[in-house]
Amino acid sequence: MAEQSTYPQTGENKVNRYKHQATYDVDTIHGIVNTTPVLHVSFVPDPSIPAPIVLPMIGQIGLYPNDSTWNCYLHGYVSSRLMNLASAAISRGEPGLPLCVAATKVDGFVLSLTPNSHNYNYRSAVMHGFASIVEDVDEKIWAMRLITNSVVPERYENTRVPPDGAEMQSTRILKMRITGASGKVREGVPEDERKDLKRDDVLDSVWTGVIPVYEKLGEPVPGPYNRVKKVPDHVVRFVKEENAIRETYASDAARKPAPLKRVKRTEE
Amino acid sequence: MAEQSTYPQTGENKVNRYKHQATYDVDTIHGIVNTTPVLHVSFVPDPSIPAPIVLPMIGQIGLYPNDSTWNCYLHGYVSSRLMNLASAAISRGEPGLPLCVAATKVDGFVLSLTPNSHNYNYRSAVMHGFASIVEDVDEKIWAMRLITNSVVPERYENTRVPPDGAEMQSTRILKMRITGASGKVREGVPEDERKDLKRDDVLDSVWTGVIPVYEKLGEPVPGPYNRVKKVPDHVVRFVKEENAIRETYASDAARKPAPLKRVKRTEE
Repeated sequence: MAEQSTYPQTGENKVNRYKHQATYDVDTIHGIVNTTPVLHVSFVPDPSIPAPIVLPMIGQIGLYPNDSTWNCYLHGYVSSRLMNLASAAISRGEPGLPLCVAATKVDGFVLSLTPNSHNYNYRSAVMHGFASIVEDVDEKIWAMRLITNSVVPERYENTRVPPDGAEMQSTRILKMRITGASGKVREGVPEDERKDLKRDDVLDSVWTGVIPVYEKLGEPVPGPYNRVKKVPDHVVRFVKEENAIRETYASDAARKPAPLKRVKRTEE
Repeated sequence: MAEQSTYPQTGENKVNRYKHQATYDVDTIHGIVNTTPVLHVSFVPDPSIPAPIVLPMIGQIGLYPNDSTWNCYLHGYVSSRLMNLASAAISRGEPGLPLCVAATKVDGFVLSLTPNSHNYNYRSAVMHGFASIVEDVDEKIWAMRLITNSVVPERYENTRVPPDGAEMQSTRILKMRITGASGKVREGVPEDERKDLKRDDVLDSVWTGVIPVYEKLGEPVPGPYNRVKKVPDHVVRFVKEENAIRETYASDAARKPAPLKRVKRTEE
């Protein structure tokens, strides 16, 4: 998928806690980001005050044909402030506005013997980089298509396109050059401390297991001015295929072996 | 629910885009945060560099009996760095580490005539504040219970409690005093521009409607050392009730009127 197979481990992105769940694998990280419907994007609005803002946005990692590296494209409720900050950073000759972008998917609630050993099955990715505004018209249309089709595949081609002049002007897309990234994946059955696993009174009274969790897509609901009687194939197929993939992932994750043996954890 | 009914609108939290979807209502904002399984928490690790970090954490807003205001308690993969930064800020006599916390729930994919008018039905909340570490033992246990029961109600009481000394020591909880907050809610059918609604060729070829989206809870899967044969009531009830609430919300949101009339949007 990408030109490199892992992101380098630096001070910026190195995972220090629950290292056994960490990943720097490019495909894994890009996969998490590109299947998460909302990314959380943080930036610092005023460099003189160390107070960040985090906003929900829609985004996708993609490789624009003219580029040699994969970048993260961000769209949706993009505040003017964020755009102005990115423009200002570029004007000052900086590589862009420093951003941090997180994507998280919850795959299950892991219910164990004690509150402390409770956990989620989850997949998360955190990326760092510098953002600028996409000015090139071709790249902007390419990114609009990429992002629209990330919500429902083939949706872009099945709408009124291309965007007209007013739409192109009102749409602004951020492009983040990724300087570092890391991911974390937890899947599997509950795990508890040896001290509790030895106690019959605890084992006999506390139910342990996993509640699988996944984002379910419901039956498509036609809107008030819809005239197309049949829900189109690209929508029907997406709902059906995605629900199967998501349910299977969460259900499988609930049954996998625990991510680490007790003896390993004590080494950390 | 809280001592005030709305959060004040300040430069920090004022919503400037899609104002008609903005809310400052305390109950709405707290409700979004407290039903979101993962919060995204951002902070600035080095005040001399305006680059933020955003991390997924578990959190809840709650009113500790000894307090006069509601605060946000954060737990989960809390990095040592985050804890050290909060401690250092307090030691310097500051009100805490500046944090921004976001909670977002996707309720539907809104498919309209053009890529630009595509949208999500969603609920989001963004809070600002200052974080310190909970040192008081009673408050810490209270917060551990609050957070555990936010995942599955009554779970805390149905596990091996109270936490022992080692567990208390290894658990660290951040408490964020909320200085400002805002929310956004979008629900309803698609809406398109008048220019497209006039075009028969577009209306006759593009399906418009909403795919409801909600976080589904699957059948609980017993773990390998579980000895309790029957899935307990608190788990069964939670899965059943939550699934009904979530499905109904997403389905209803897909059918509500569009959030604004065309004429209003042009005024913005």
